[in-house]
Amino acid sequence: MKACGLVVEYNPFHNGHVYHLQQAKKVTNADCIVAVMSGSFLQRGEPAISDKFHRAKAALQTGVDLVLELPFVCAVQHSDLFADGAVRILHECKISALCFGSESGELSSFVHGYHAWKENKTKFDIFLKEKLHLGYSFPQAAKYAYEKLGLTAGDFDLTQPNNILGFGYVRAIMENNFPMEPKTIRRIQSHYHDSHLHGNIASATSIRKELLGNSELTTKARNSLPDSTIVQLDAYRKKADLWHHWELYFPLLQYRINTMTPEELRQIFGVDEGMEYRIKKMASKAMNFADLVRLVKSKRYTWTRIQRMFVYILANIKDEEMNRLKQAEIPYLRILGFTERGKAFLNEKKKDIAVPLVTSYHRDQHPMLAIEEKASHAYYSVLKAENKQTLFQQEMQGPVQI
Amino acid sequence: MKACGLVVEYNPFHNGHVYHLQQAKKVTNADCIVAVMSGSFLQRGEPAISDKFHRAKAALQTGVDLVLELPFVCAVQHSDLFADGAVRILHECKISALCFGSESGELSSFVHGYHAWKENKTKFDIFLKEKLHLGYSFPQAAKYAYEKLGLTAGDFDLTQPNNILGFGYVRAIMENNFPMEPKTIRRIQSHYHDSHLHGNIASATSIRKELLGNSELTTKARNSLPDSTIVQLDAYRKKADLWHHWELYFPLLQYRINTMTPEELRQIFGVDEGMEYRIKKMASKAMNFADLVRLVKSKRYTWTRIQRMFVYILANIKDEEMNRLKQAEIPYLRILGFTERGKAFLNEKKKDIAVPLVTSYHRDQHPMLAIEEKASHAYYSVLKAENKQTLFQQEMQGPVQI
Repeated sequence: MKACGLVVEYNPFHNGHVYHLQQAKKVTNADCIVAVMSGSFLQRGEPAISDKFHRAKAALQTGVDLVLELPFVCAVQHSDLFADGAVRILHECKISALCFGSESGELSSFVHGYHAWKENKTKFDIFLKEKLHLGYSFPQAAKYAYEKLGLTAGDFDLTQPNNILGFGYVRAIMENNFPMEPKTIRRIQSHYHDSHLHGNIASATSIRKELLGNSELTTKARNSLPDSTIVQLDAYRKKADLWHHWELYFPLLQYRINTMTPEELRQIFGVDEGMEYRIKKMASKAMNFADLVRLVKSKRYTWTRIQRMFVYILANIKDEEMNRLKQAEIPYLRILGFTERGKAFLNEKKKDIAVPLVTSYHRDQHPMLAIEEKASHAYYSVLKAENKQTLFQQEMQGPVQI
Repeated sequence: MKACGLVVEYNPFHNGHVYHLQQAKKVTNADCIVAVMSGSFLQRGEPAISDKFHRAKAALQTGVDLVLELPFVCAVQHSDLFADGAVRILHECKISALCFGSESGELSSFVHGYHAWKENKTKFDIFLKEKLHLGYSFPQAAKYAYEKLGLTAGDFDLTQPNNILGFGYVRAIMENNFPMEPKTIRRIQSHYHDSHLHGNIASATSIRKELLGNSELTTKARNSLPDSTIVQLDAYRKKADLWHHWELYFPLLQYRINTMTPEELRQIFGVDEGMEYRIKKMASKAMNFADLVRLVKSKRYTWTRIQRMFVYILANIKDEEMNRLKQAEIPYLRILGFTERGKAFLNEKKKDIAVPLVTSYHRDQHPMLAIEEKASHAYYSVLKAENKQTLFQQEMQGPVQI
């Protein structure tokens, strides 16, 4: 069987994603679709609107055959590490093609970009460091470096989030010589940051806005979602009694920061030296989460980076725990769900898969999975006691089967 | 000026306390009353029903002249350490008498008890250890040891909480030869654990029950409280929108335990080796705080001891922080409030007081005060963001003045 891999967050799984997977299947001529999906927390340092299992189920009911978890330590990272982790997971799972959405739909510009970057790596790093030293944020410094290498011309604008990720996938495949064909399809939806719903395809951002503003799924939101997502979102809402978003976590985060010493705070992954005092000072002043990010923000740190830092504080993930993980190692594949076809694919490939297939948390688990467990606990912490218990149970019960 | 010291929790300050301080003034012939009071958390490992400042104010308006904070590290401790810390604070503050309530009202039995304990210290310790090794709790083992020394006969029953504390005060004074006259008066109220309100004097336990069962102060509760407490409780309730009790803290505690590694949990003060696994296991099962204590409890640990352990987990106080404190050192006196008379007393004595008088938290503060600050933050963590900020401000504004 030939599988095409997708790197996704499905927050939530919407019509644009359905289009993407249908096109992916077409252009790669794949028998099945394997999605590697962020779990409880997302690349931009936010809690997913609903849990990983209901999100996976919605996708499995509408075309995806196998959903693997992108580990927390890869998912809640800047785009380079996010892309690298996702590609490695797909490689471990023996998929033969990877298809991503881009603004242009032209793979050649990504391949050209990779070669240009590769040939000018030393220069790129010099340009990058130059701006970082001046206090620019990483994306700003990277943009400057790409511009200097002439990599932002025309269609291939590396300041567009989807192009940045696409470049990351292509680079990870080519740098590692993975036997995986990269493909890209042109995104037909509105721009990523668009926050207006229009037509049947809308951005995830605009759909979330619609969901968070209303306790029920509005017609506007429903129009942009496949039936399976509507069913799964409704089901989750019934069990959890809420949609997850940062503001709900603010009391926990504030409590946590207020009861930590600056030294303890500095031990958290992503808290740079000196930040601990600023965070502690602002945590007792802030009235809500947005307020806290605004108070802590400076030129050097993007909003997203600060959000990721707060995810690590919330889930209590330390530098020391992250350093214990071997760079670039994928120690297991965690299966969140599969269809019959996904199961057949796994059965065919399992003799070639070098790492254990994992379905739930267990004693003496890999440190990467222990981090996942803490993050999951943090994720469900905003629920009422009874809902918390029921929903955390899913994490122990293993994959969703369709 | 001659001051009489009282060791109190005032949770809340009620008619029994008014009687106690009036009698104390009479029997010691004192000009003023100095109370050393537990702050945010209490000896039995519980949050105080309202904050320290409103509790102090109620007392200052009805006869107490100066309220000092019993530091968290002394207050949330078994009775021996609680009593020892309180007596040391009063000694530092140059009071000349200490008056405590007891079942018998006979000081001689406490003095006799002290001498008997002193002469038989080695035997006492052997009896104590014998039972501790068999898995008895500390209070049970101590009861056994006192019985073997014949110290539970008649009026002097050392299994009564107030007698245990009184014995602790007398022992601390006599062991250290403090120039402080111990006095005791007979308690006229119902037994400490009584949970029925009757007449104008009722136990604090029964009053709390009445408060927690109703959002307003009931007539039943009002009958047992001086006007100043009614005013201060009402004022606090208006600002905080709640009474503090353990169940409100359960989501924070559960979140905290669920996102800690067993190794981190073992570093918390009061978490004995081996307990960390039991606590982690039970924290994800428990539906509420009472449930969690019940699940963690065993013969060796009293309910109270487990509650104290959870206070230390909640406030994130580590062994290492506690070990940094010098045994028996009182590094400062924190003034929570005073009347004109209390101020005059302080002015007269301040040249003799060897430690700094502290009123709020500050940079580079003593580690004992840093612990207090964390505990205070934990205490206010259950409030809404705006209330939390307003009420924490009190901690920075310094003492209440009447």
